[in-house]
Amino acid sequence: MSGNTFGHLFAVTNFGESHGPAIGCVIDGCPPGLELSEADLQPDLDRRRPGTSRYVTQRNEPDAVEILSGVYEGQTTGTPIALLIRNTDQRSKDYGNLLDTFRPGHADYTYAHKYGVRDPRGGGRSSARLTAPMVAAGAVAKKWLRLSHGVQFKGCLTQIGELPIAFESWDHVNNNPFFAPLADVSPLEAYMDALRKSGDSCGARLRVVASGMPVGLGQPLYDKLDADIAYAMMGINAVKGVEIGAGFSSITQRGSVHGDALTPAGFASNHAGGVLGGISTGQDLEVSLAIKPTSSIITPRPSIDRSGQATEVVTRGRHDPCVGIRATPIAEAMLALVVMEHALQHRAQCADVQPMLPRIPASPV
Amino acid sequence: MSGNTFGHLFAVTNFGESHGPAIGCVIDGCPPGLELSEADLQPDLDRRRPGTSRYVTQRNEPDAVEILSGVYEGQTTGTPIALLIRNTDQRSKDYGNLLDTFRPGHADYTYAHKYGVRDPRGGGRSSARLTAPMVAAGAVAKKWLRLSHGVQFKGCLTQIGELPIAFESWDHVNNNPFFAPLADVSPLEAYMDALRKSGDSCGARLRVVASGMPVGLGQPLYDKLDADIAYAMMGINAVKGVEIGAGFSSITQRGSVHGDALTPAGFASNHAGGVLGGISTGQDLEVSLAIKPTSSIITPRPSIDRSGQATEVVTRGRHDPCVGIRATPIAEAMLALVVMEHALQHRAQCADVQPMLPRIPASPV
Amino acid sequence: MSGNTFGHLFAVTNFGESHGPAIGCVIDGCPPGLELSEADLQPDLDRRRPGTSRYVTQRNEPDAVEILSGVYEGQTTGTPIALLIRNTDQRSKDYGNLLDTFRPGHADYTYAHKYGVRDPRGGGRSSARLTAPMVAAGAVAKKWLRLSHGVQFKGCLTQIGELPIAFESWDHVNNNPFFAPLADVSPLEAYMDALRKSGDSCGARLRVVASGMPVGLGQPLYDKLDADIAYAMMGINAVKGVEIGAGFSSITQRGSVHGDALTPAGFASNHAGGVLGGISTGQDLEVSLAIKPTSSIITPRPSIDRSGQATEVVTRGRHDPCVGIRATPIAEAMLALVVMEHALQHRAQCADVQPMLPRIPASPV
Amino acid sequence: MSGNTFGHLFAVTNFGESHGPAIGCVIDGCPPGLELSEADLQPDLDRRRPGTSRYVTQRNEPDAVEILSGVYEGQTTGTPIALLIRNTDQRSKDYGNLLDTFRPGHADYTYAHKYGVRDPRGGGRSSARLTAPMVAAGAVAKKWLRLSHGVQFKGCLTQIGELPIAFESWDHVNNNPFFAPLADVSPLEAYMDALRKSGDSCGARLRVVASGMPVGLGQPLYDKLDADIAYAMMGINAVKGVEIGAGFSSITQRGSVHGDALTPAGFASNHAGGVLGGISTGQDLEVSLAIKPTSSIITPRPSIDRSGQATEVVTRGRHDPCVGIRATPIAEAMLALVVMEHALQHRAQCADVQPMLPRIPASPV
Repeated sequence: MSGNTFGHLFAVTNFGESHGPAIGCVIDGCPPGLELSEADLQPDLDRRRPGTSRYVTQRNEPDAVEILSGVYEGQTTGTPIALLIRNTDQRSKDYGNLLDTFRPGHADYTYAHKYGVRDPRGGGRSSARLTAPMVAAGAVAKKWLRLSHGVQFKGCLTQIGELPIAFESWDHVNNNPFFAPLADVSPLEAYMDALRKSGDSCGARLRVVASGMPVGLGQPLYDKLDADIAYAMMGINAVKGVEIGAGFSSITQRGSVHGDALTPAGFASNHAGGVLGGISTGQDLEVSLAIKPTSSIITPRPSIDRSGQATEVVTRGRHDPCVGIRATPIAEAMLALVVMEHALQHRAQCADVQPMLPRIPASPV
Repeated sequence: MSGNTFGHLFAVTNFGESHGPAIGCVIDGCPPGLELSEADLQPDLDRRRPGTSRYVTQRNEPDAVEILSGVYEGQTTGTPIALLIRNTDQRSKDYGNLLDTFRPGHADYTYAHKYGVRDPRGGGRSSARLTAPMVAAGAVAKKWLRLSHGVQFKGCLTQIGELPIAFESWDHVNNNPFFAPLADVSPLEAYMDALRKSGDSCGARLRVVASGMPVGLGQPLYDKLDADIAYAMMGINAVKGVEIGAGFSSITQRGSVHGDALTPAGFASNHAGGVLGGISTGQDLEVSLAIKPTSSIITPRPSIDRSGQATEVVTRGRHDPCVGIRATPIAEAMLALVVMEHALQHRAQCADVQPMLPRIPASPV
Repeated sequence: MSGNTFGHLFAVTNFGESHGPAIGCVIDGCPPGLELSEADLQPDLDRRRPGTSRYVTQRNEPDAVEILSGVYEGQTTGTPIALLIRNTDQRSKDYGNLLDTFRPGHADYTYAHKYGVRDPRGGGRSSARLTAPMVAAGAVAKKWLRLSHGVQFKGCLTQIGELPIAFESWDHVNNNPFFAPLADVSPLEAYMDALRKSGDSCGARLRVVASGMPVGLGQPLYDKLDADIAYAMMGINAVKGVEIGAGFSSITQRGSVHGDALTPAGFASNHAGGVLGGISTGQDLEVSLAIKPTSSIITPRPSIDRSGQATEVVTRGRHDPCVGIRATPIAEAMLALVVMEHALQHRAQCADVQPMLPRIPASPV
Repeated sequence: MSGNTFGHLFAVTNFGESHGPAIGCVIDGCPPGLELSEADLQPDLDRRRPGTSRYVTQRNEPDAVEILSGVYEGQTTGTPIALLIRNTDQRSKDYGNLLDTFRPGHADYTYAHKYGVRDPRGGGRSSARLTAPMVAAGAVAKKWLRLSHGVQFKGCLTQIGELPIAFESWDHVNNNPFFAPLADVSPLEAYMDALRKSGDSCGARLRVVASGMPVGLGQPLYDKLDADIAYAMMGINAVKGVEIGAGFSSITQRGSVHGDALTPAGFASNHAGGVLGGISTGQDLEVSLAIKPTSSIITPRPSIDRSGQATEVVTRGRHDPCVGIRATPIAEAMLALVVMEHALQHRAQCADVQPMLPRIPASPV
């Protein structure tokens, strides 16, 4: 429970720093007999990795993952799966000055207080680089959930700064560097080019969905499915807000509108976002995230030095002007880890259960 | 980890159903030597309890708590503190029909699928009544944090349905049945009277704050302070969205604006909401919640019966037309449990730490 | 994880003190649909309870258990099962002097150092009375394991002080106050009468067995089935040693003897005690315990007072001259909790597994 | 909680197989500011590693450990410490036949049932090789406990097969390949040479001690210090029995003898083995283990094949005729991990405690 392990039955322990020798994780509790190789993990790692467009950090990391254990002759053995990713493109000198200054909006200040020692190279442990092992672990969960339960995960960017992004089709999401559900992303390109020139950064909104969900995953309290989703999403670097289903718009809804009517043909709507009483309804899990603007910007900011005196900090090095752009595969992965955990928890306790009523179709009529 | 325990070092295990013999919790890990009696718990329980105004459910429960263990001669002994609240005003017959029908927007359907058996009386385990033990446990955490760290918790209602509530002063919050920071709540009274007449329900928005925070509470990932706050808040009945600090408004902020400047005189702002990199900055924890409208309404709704056939459900019994009204003390309690857990986690690992730099004042200059 | 919870998926949180208002536990994670009432728990509680013969403490406690939650219309609902046992026969004045003195071999000294405050009445939290909730929780596990897996638990006394107890038959165990597998227990009666007269106490050895075990329960490391059994048994008051299978006699065995031969007709022996590599073989779990002599004796002992000065302590009050006599149902219960936990863990991870080879009979050929 | 993590606050997650690419562990929760490098870990790894004498397996593994994270400029940062040990001397062909046969007394059979798939190379996950990461993690705990609390760990072999080993002095332990506290180990050499010729294996008894213990480490129940020690020791490969203090000999002791008298000059004895009521007394922790004979022997044994038919199994490859010989540093490491965990747990809950009485000297008068 020392903070760096996600999950209990499908427990992912994350390690590493941005500029240390390596990053990675250990997955404990994976069901045996799952066909698994590095080829199953690399595609999502490639979707997340930096250097793939001019809109993200130019750090060039192949993020090649090595499976160190838990797989024998192409199958998981049920023992811990250790995943290793060597860091290759560190430029620590870019960060030499950061041990003595503290970026506004960054973890520099809090780490320095909590631990009394910190690795300033590339943000050390607080770097978004540590989301790579989450993505790799999520890929294992995604594969198992797809094969054993038919659950699918997808996500997209729905807003960047002041620019809302209309939903056209999921088909477009992987055809542009923004994970935008749009055919024509030229407005986003223009927006990002202007932002980059300004030397500033902006926030973003994401949507993540799990479809093909079983009914009954979750716990009454406190480990509700939606509570664990909120925990998982707020745990992603730079996330400041999480919504399930109607989210904040449910404030102005009437109960007669918000409550999704049950009909033999299916649910009439999905304001619940797929969770009622902390337990999955079988409808799509609908999650929305707010991601803050990057704190590492080249615009000079007022700050303090280690003696507490006023100073000014300017961040050199290579950074994402909008971390939200690369966050989609990360949010998908974390959602997959939550669903995986609850799928195992559910069969531990309820494997023998006969439901009291038939399941109704998930999709709104 | 079976879902009904909150926390690891200050672990609160919640039990009970709305119309069972009793509800309560066991608090494991409370530091010894804390002066504690029922009188410390009752005030917050009274703030939460039903039947206190015409705007909430008329169920009349004294919610009198009994300390069964862990306290000797008025001091905590460091052993588990069991808290018992007997249910007294059940009217189970009100719910007789509910075993065969399933309220839209309610946990009826998901429990029936997950467990294959359920206690329909008053919502059973999914009832908001189960927040009473959370409030009692939170009162223990509040007292210890106040005495040992000077941390204070407060909350208020900031919106009800379409009606935004301006912030006038914390002083008003406990002087009206809405926990509204207003001197004159007559507009809220009018709004609720109209809502009640309509036979419908509405949502609400809440704000919860912890002030006097230490610097350094939290974990890098995944058990970030803000991730655990999101988990705690989304775990409260009917919550559909959580924000920390600027929350969703950070999407449209620039990094040069969002990042709270550090100055020798203090932080220049608190868009972070008191957390950076998952670790407390020492500024106020600022949390905002969205609460959905109650699903138990007298307006007839389309639903299905146990055979899956179409039917109509009308909820009798006594319900809150806006559960958000009573949620403020609950959200305060859950925030206190999160801070308590991290205060103990922090000294377990970092009791010997010398911070790298002086602490700057918390409040914005 | 604050110490008073046993198990993860079938998590039992124990609370109470010997002379407080009540003792009990909360069971979180019980599968739903199990028929359960107080009548299922009382028999084992009665086997453990004091005052049943002149060989045990004369404290007279009915140990009547009340189910507070988690059961609806005679079936478990899958939500937490809270069990309450009110203390009725406290004579705290018997212990008035104990706050200032520290019994050799008792927890008095360690509690006073750890917590700086302690409840001295009847040993407070360290009293063997706290095994009652363990027994009640174990009865739930026993029932589920018997109905769903056909696992049976039994135990007996195999030595008392210097007096070895030959094994005649399991049939005798519940026909005498010693849980001795003997038809004629007059030698034990004579031994205990003499011991009582001497004002001293003695130790005991117990054997506990689980039969009808599934194959495959346990984890490679560290949560091996035998490791968890050792943890459970050593956690019982006064236990100082634990053996699995051949235990300490395996030191002098040759590998060619110790390794239980596998034959199509079954295992040729059971030196492993039903566990290999931390995982159940399907043979009987064979566990042996050493229980130390009671530290509360009327014989005066040298000790210190709160100022650290030499003093003499004599224990009044009512105590067991041999706590081992009542330990058999406790050890059965703890073994049942371990097997229950691993049965749920196993199906969480391995519900889909096809074994690589047929199972061979459990009992030695 | 998926089985391969040891501890909660100082949580060590172990991964790897005997003949996979690598083995290792991740340590989460280490206090920051501890000076640490590979040089702190290698000495204990070298004490444990194979190939160091003709009495142990001839597998030649340098067991060179690499620190992948959690250390910056020679100091722990408080973030996860990942330790990697590459496997170098695999001869998997030695084990080609083992996928279809099942060694009596080995985990082959149980893994094949639990997981339906297994890595047979060198015993895969069940190999004693996986104790190397335990030893490395234990070295971190040892260093922190020595520097911050003055706790020291030592162990020795006390019996090998039928041959008891008299205790002469701790000084001899690291001067012979048996960890025997003897100046002249020629009888042990003769014993082992004869055993090797016989093609068989034997068991052993070990003693492990922690001195300089703080008072007050542990929990009332269930996570007693002695319960966690039993769990840790029984979790070591091949261990079948565990004793604390007087252990099984306490059965025949009288309470007036067993209970260690408290005097201003110190405890009069240490039958408790340093634990009372699950909490440390400040006396030495005294632990004794029984280790079974190796199951991998060249003597032919009756077994079954995958079709369940009778067959005969002969183990080729390189094995320890007495695994107990190399177990001393492993048992020391596991004891250190238990004490480390409880040291952190204790200050989490009880950092502010003022003991009720002075501490008396630990060593028997």
